[in-house]
Amino acid sequence: MTGIVVQNVERADREIIEGLGELGVATVHEAQGRRGLLASYMRPIYSGARLAASAVTISAPPCDNWMIHVAVEQIRDGDILVLAPTSPSDAGYFGDLLATSAKARGCRGLVIDAGVRDIRDLTAMQFPVWSKAVCAQGCVKETLGSVNVPIVCAGEMIRAGDIIVADDDGVCVVRREEATDVLEKARAREANETAKRAQFEVGVLGLDLYRMRERLGEKGLKYV
Amino acid sequence: MTGIVVQNVERADREIIEGLGELGVATVHEAQGRRGLLASYMRPIYSGARLAASAVTISAPPCDNWMIHVAVEQIRDGDILVLAPTSPSDAGYFGDLLATSAKARGCRGLVIDAGVRDIRDLTAMQFPVWSKAVCAQGCVKETLGSVNVPIVCAGEMIRAGDIIVADDDGVCVVRREEATDVLEKARAREANETAKRAQFEVGVLGLDLYRMRERLGEKGLKYV
Amino acid sequence: MTGIVVQNVERADREIIEGLGELGVATVHEAQGRRGLLASYMRPIYSGARLAASAVTISAPPCDNWMIHVAVEQIRDGDILVLAPTSPSDAGYFGDLLATSAKARGCRGLVIDAGVRDIRDLTAMQFPVWSKAVCAQGCVKETLGSVNVPIVCAGEMIRAGDIIVADDDGVCVVRREEATDVLEKARAREANETAKRAQFEVGVLGLDLYRMRERLGEKGLKYV
Amino acid sequence: MTGIVVQNVERADREIIEGLGELGVATVHEAQGRRGLLASYMRPIYSGARLAASAVTISAPPCDNWMIHVAVEQIRDGDILVLAPTSPSDAGYFGDLLATSAKARGCRGLVIDAGVRDIRDLTAMQFPVWSKAVCAQGCVKETLGSVNVPIVCAGEMIRAGDIIVADDDGVCVVRREEATDVLEKARAREANETAKRAQFEVGVLGLDLYRMRERLGEKGLKYV
Amino acid sequence: MTGIVVQNVERADREIIEGLGELGVATVHEAQGRRGLLASYMRPIYSGARLAASAVTISAPPCDNWMIHVAVEQIRDGDILVLAPTSPSDAGYFGDLLATSAKARGCRGLVIDAGVRDIRDLTAMQFPVWSKAVCAQGCVKETLGSVNVPIVCAGEMIRAGDIIVADDDGVCVVRREEATDVLEKARAREANETAKRAQFEVGVLGLDLYRMRERLGEKGLKYV
Amino acid sequence: MTGIVVQNVERADREIIEGLGELGVATVHEAQGRRGLLASYMRPIYSGARLAASAVTISAPPCDNWMIHVAVEQIRDGDILVLAPTSPSDAGYFGDLLATSAKARGCRGLVIDAGVRDIRDLTAMQFPVWSKAVCAQGCVKETLGSVNVPIVCAGEMIRAGDIIVADDDGVCVVRREEATDVLEKARAREANETAKRAQFEVGVLGLDLYRMRERLGEKGLKYV
Repeated sequence: MTGIVVQNVERADREIIEGLGELGVATVHEAQGRRGLLASYMRPIYSGARLAASAVTISAPPCDNWMIHVAVEQIRDGDILVLAPTSPSDAGYFGDLLATSAKARGCRGLVIDAGVRDIRDLTAMQFPVWSKAVCAQGCVKETLGSVNVPIVCAGEMIRAGDIIVADDDGVCVVRREEATDVLEKARAREANETAKRAQFEVGVLGLDLYRMRERLGEKGLKYV
Repeated sequence: MTGIVVQNVERADREIIEGLGELGVATVHEAQGRRGLLASYMRPIYSGARLAASAVTISAPPCDNWMIHVAVEQIRDGDILVLAPTSPSDAGYFGDLLATSAKARGCRGLVIDAGVRDIRDLTAMQFPVWSKAVCAQGCVKETLGSVNVPIVCAGEMIRAGDIIVADDDGVCVVRREEATDVLEKARAREANETAKRAQFEVGVLGLDLYRMRERLGEKGLKYV
Repeated sequence: MTGIVVQNVERADREIIEGLGELGVATVHEAQGRRGLLASYMRPIYSGARLAASAVTISAPPCDNWMIHVAVEQIRDGDILVLAPTSPSDAGYFGDLLATSAKARGCRGLVIDAGVRDIRDLTAMQFPVWSKAVCAQGCVKETLGSVNVPIVCAGEMIRAGDIIVADDDGVCVVRREEATDVLEKARAREANETAKRAQFEVGVLGLDLYRMRERLGEKGLKYV
Repeated sequence: MTGIVVQNVERADREIIEGLGELGVATVHEAQGRRGLLASYMRPIYSGARLAASAVTISAPPCDNWMIHVAVEQIRDGDILVLAPTSPSDAGYFGDLLATSAKARGCRGLVIDAGVRDIRDLTAMQFPVWSKAVCAQGCVKETLGSVNVPIVCAGEMIRAGDIIVADDDGVCVVRREEATDVLEKARAREANETAKRAQFEVGVLGLDLYRMRERLGEKGLKYV
Repeated sequence: MTGIVVQNVERADREIIEGLGELGVATVHEAQGRRGLLASYMRPIYSGARLAASAVTISAPPCDNWMIHVAVEQIRDGDILVLAPTSPSDAGYFGDLLATSAKARGCRGLVIDAGVRDIRDLTAMQFPVWSKAVCAQGCVKETLGSVNVPIVCAGEMIRAGDIIVADDDGVCVVRREEATDVLEKARAREANETAKRAQFEVGVLGLDLYRMRERLGEKGLKYV
Repeated sequence: MTGIVVQNVERADREIIEGLGELGVATVHEAQGRRGLLASYMRPIYSGARLAASAVTISAPPCDNWMIHVAVEQIRDGDILVLAPTSPSDAGYFGDLLATSAKARGCRGLVIDAGVRDIRDLTAMQFPVWSKAVCAQGCVKETLGSVNVPIVCAGEMIRAGDIIVADDDGVCVVRREEATDVLEKARAREANETAKRAQFEVGVLGLDLYRMRERLGEKGLKYV
């Protein structure tokens, strides 16, 4: 079950993906019923990046980054690499050379439940990475893993072609077949929030806007 | 003992509070005898903020942010929200909508022993937050907590009206009734440090400035 | 065995040290056979610093920073302080006053397997620190430690006069007697990487550049 | 996608399941190609339990154990409950009352990526639990989750009817459709290990038994 | 505010304390409205101990156990020592000599948000300890702390004379003035649980016993 | 510098080693000036073991246990294996087969800054292990490491032939050349403690036994 490269991966439509990227992690996560959020230890190497992209998944042995080279060939413009080690590792699987190679293939970034290095160069290239660790420790190239098989990354199952949404709040996965529906719900949510924001800006209270006072009273809230 | 909102909270004088904010966490913490520092896992979502403000405290159930809406109504200009969950949680209790609402009431920021989200927006708003985690996971609004009761947040007891001092070094609490005294001591300390800094800049050693050589010798320090 | 200050420490040649600093942690670490990397929890207090310097080591009791004053006297231009507590501690051993004093002696920065404070001031001074924690908690000056004895800092043994290389990827130690050799290998590696980077930029795959396809096939990789 | 209870779950044959239980986690994990191991923070509440059982999965909101009551009705003799919260939680979802109820339905134990309580009683009952935490903090019963849907628990995807193997080494999941094959391989492995153990007991070295000397020499191992 | 020993501490009645000890942490914690539970990292050094006792509190500097000797003199029969360091520490503050001394004064055990050592001897003595760490690292006796002042230990405020309940599930604090009321509620809860346990043992489901089916249906639970 | 097996390792006298083992970690650690204690996350897989033995050190690649087979050949009766991975790993490097082989050579146990498995079997064999993790994940045999070179294990440098003392309190290293001296000091300490224990048992206070009252008063301790 290891040593497999799945080549024909269906991607979502680009405009759906980009729509999700504009809305960001918190809104998309809410819109799909609070599912799909990766563990909060996944942090960006620099602030300000926000994107959505189609996942090329990598299942890699601990401290072995051989399969990233295999995965780079599978990248199409608009993809993002998503790597989960088969045993926990903080080693630096990825640096500026691999980023240069991936970027030349149209890669938008990396999500990795392990370590990354050369982050000064990656920041200069504006190649965004969400990782568990920053670590200069390199990897070997000895053992096979797989590419584009389903993986569990930072607590969430991710399949090739699923959409990854990532920003300063973290990383969320949207199933490819649900993407259109999630985008629609997320846009509705965003519109609704914009209306509320205007109310909050002029001092309306959430207690009134959401009509919470009665229910709070029923639950027994007391003002003293 | 849950489901209480304390409304009449005494605040310290604004100039006392602002004086503490100018001095920063490390100086204030030293000046009050090294008490009141919150655990070092409390980190700012962006660098460079420094403030002091009067605490509005929130005791909230895990993954339930209902009481923040209740607390916002209690905010006066110059206050800061301080939230402790009753069971550990990394969930995102607070985002840009609540920040907009709180800011409209004069709120200066948030200290939360849990998660926060929308940090790109919060950074753009320059609404400072010190938190244990960044997490896009939202909360429910099902269970009561309390507002302005004493809480334990990141290892320190905080009462409504206590002064919170926060900057890049972390978060410190000053008792309201001790604030005037602490400010005086902190200013004296700051003045003393300014004098020492001038000495250090021209190369005077701490060994000489603090007359440490004799005591080090008595303890048995050996140069080889 | 405690209470010792070693005064005559041999340093590597300055141009060797500076050469290592230009190459950075990841390249140097690879060039010396993947040895010498400190634990990945050692993080810089601000982004963008890169340096190499000669270690002045400090073995300090928990929450006691007395020996830093002793160590400052031992600093020569181009040195870096490296502190390991004898029992784990997140306390803030070092702040802007000590930085001012150390800088006046030619100190380039600090590596500390404990906490640091005044990071707003240290950032303004551009005095780089790599630490395990940021913490405003101060220290006492009661118990002796040692200066310029071998220490274990964040999992690596460091001797006075060893070269510390540090940047956004973390911290690496190079033995003084191996520095010339490591620099040569690191430069060769850098040159080799520059050539590869040009290939990757025009879309050549690592699979081809490193001739991996045959070995992957032998190991059983299957494309489906 | 929440609020679903899947009722018709196919189980593996009981003798297959029991066969896996006799072999234990390490052997089964190896036999299926080193897949399926839950994160090593999953620890038993007491030593010495070893079992295999068919999974009844529970996806539960943070700090809300309502769905365990729903799941208990779905238990058949020989099942094990497997719970993953939708947001990280250490709260105590399960105690001696639920254990009594589950045991009466034939439940063999619990695997929970959260907290458990009443462990003195659970130990006295010999009801084994593998958990992330021990915590007396109770849960609410406010929000729906799902039962017998696929979940990610401690980093591994688990489906209802998959076989859980657990002992002092941790927890491993075996896909129901692969169980017969894995059992066969695990038994072969066990037989092979028994033969080797006899050799090791009389002092034969692994270097000789596995004929490693030549390959070590080729890699450059030097005896000094 | 440091260097204080409060001598006249009011204790709760012994039978109240012993009553709480028989009921255990989970029941007492529920009975007082889910308040007072210390962080779940506080673990017993051996299994099976269950007790309640009156707190003698110690606020101690990091890695300095001098104040424990001061506290021992304040112990009365039926007390328990509760120590919180003023800065996080895993050092071993307490071992078999201090246990021998404390036990001779009637001390029932120790709760410490730091490290303990000599646990083989403590286990042989059946002197129970709940701690954050086991660590052979000793302490100095250089700096004052305080005894019987309010402390925050593992996230909860504890005052001298408060009742500590501890068992394999962890540690809970009960306010002295609430102890009688909490005991009554805890006993009612225990009686209620005994009745339920009998029902569960004969196979009655929680769904029926708690009449949950209707509310689950209203929330939208679907059986498929 | 990798791929080295040092064969001629000098060991301390057996009676010195056994003497240290009888005294235990806390006493030995104190007797040698509070040096040499490994990090407190190193825990025994079962309670009650206490030993001292001569270290056979192993520097191993992450998730690669090949060098343990090489090390087993170097074991002499009375040795203990001590393994540090070159990059952090929780993988299970060692199980019952390797234990059987090592035991047949006279090995007394294992100290490993990584994972161990088959702990039910190891407990049955009474083969003690102190480790960072328990994990069923196996290792590969692909890359060379070294045997009997100096390593840093759990924060302490250990050389082949150094004496490892381990019990329920953790693990401590004693330099071979200091062992005789440390044993003498540890025995003196033990005798001293036995005398004190007798005093404490009859109720003498540490305050009096150590004549602390005067110094506490000078520091400003106040009884209220």
